[in-house]
Amino acid sequence: MKFYSTAVSGNAYKVRILLALLNVPHDQVMLDFARREHKTPEFLRLNPRGEAPVIEDAGVVIWDSGACLVYLARKYGGEQWLPAAAAPMAEVMQWMSLAASEIQFGLQYARRGLLQKRWTAGTLEQGHAIARVALTAIEQRLERHEWLALGHPTIADVACFPYVETAPESGIPLDAYPHVKAWLARCKQLPSWPAH
Amino acid sequence: MKFYSTAVSGNAYKVRILLALLNVPHDQVMLDFARREHKTPEFLRLNPRGEAPVIEDAGVVIWDSGACLVYLARKYGGEQWLPAAAAPMAEVMQWMSLAASEIQFGLQYARRGLLQKRWTAGTLEQGHAIARVALTAIEQRLERHEWLALGHPTIADVACFPYVETAPESGIPLDAYPHVKAWLARCKQLPSWPAH
Repeated sequence: MKFYSTAVSGNAYKVRILLALLNVPHDQVMLDFARREHKTPEFLRLNPRGEAPVIEDAGVVIWDSGACLVYLARKYGGEQWLPAAAAPMAEVMQWMSLAASEIQFGLQYARRGLLQKRWTAGTLEQGHAIARVALTAIEQRLERHEWLALGHPTIADVACFPYVETAPESGIPLDAYPHVKAWLARCKQLPSWPAH
Repeated sequence: MKFYSTAVSGNAYKVRILLALLNVPHDQVMLDFARREHKTPEFLRLNPRGEAPVIEDAGVVIWDSGACLVYLARKYGGEQWLPAAAAPMAEVMQWMSLAASEIQFGLQYARRGLLQKRWTAGTLEQGHAIARVALTAIEQRLERHEWLALGHPTIADVACFPYVETAPESGIPLDAYPHVKAWLARCKQLPSWPAH
């Protein structure tokens, strides 16, 4: 398996977490975004969005971090990380959607803006308002549960972790979200959980 | 099954499409957004995001349009609409993620802004730039395939359809995307596909 990654991306980090948790052998290909290696014609043939991560496994090419997590969970994770039954799968998917929407366009967006001084979808304040929808939903869930979906870790936790962990780099301290902070610590205690 | 919906939302329309395609009996509860029925404490207990759609089925509550599609597909759709095997499921999931990210924050965002004069995540031009990432990826896929994922209709098509169909209301005519237009027509020819 080839795993196309890049240094700073939290989206690539999601896939790196699950590869580590499931102990899947792979070759990591680091893309140099400064040299725009994610926008070459060759790479755009793998991923029309021109982003990391991408995985290539026995002729199967998967772009999008959430889709990569789904692939790894179903292929190498048995029924734990993404169960196939309707209700538990949908419960995981709620948080996968939150990761692709409010977390991406709120937390990730504000972090990229602050780190790279690049604003392509509104102001910092607008990004923060979107981010707080996600953080509030997560905090409320974790007030009475240990994990985002189901009673054990799933790819919902993996998908939401990276940009929630770096919320302070997005300009949002997590002190107002104590259950989120406890959950971040719980995730990092899982065997083989890699640091960013 | 209860299906909480609202009149204008393309996200609720996604769920309405799949309920019709799969012929699932249900009670539709229409929320009046003008009266802020989606922000009452009772509704926020069902959906922390305060949005339609939500489905409630035998004690299971699912918020988020993508998660609702996953639930219905797995519970009532056999293996056609969302197969459980790793590669085909991940291929569907790529487009579900696109629907939750670029389609939502590009096409849906621009449409809402133009219809409601409400701009919460950047300008119209910024929304259009995000929307074009999605439309280009979809057009490229459809140049050589009939459906977004796999060789037959899946929830990938259902999830992407509503806000792509209304792209002109988002200020983006679809004439530059001929394969997208042909795919929209193909979707609408599926038995029981409901109009918006």
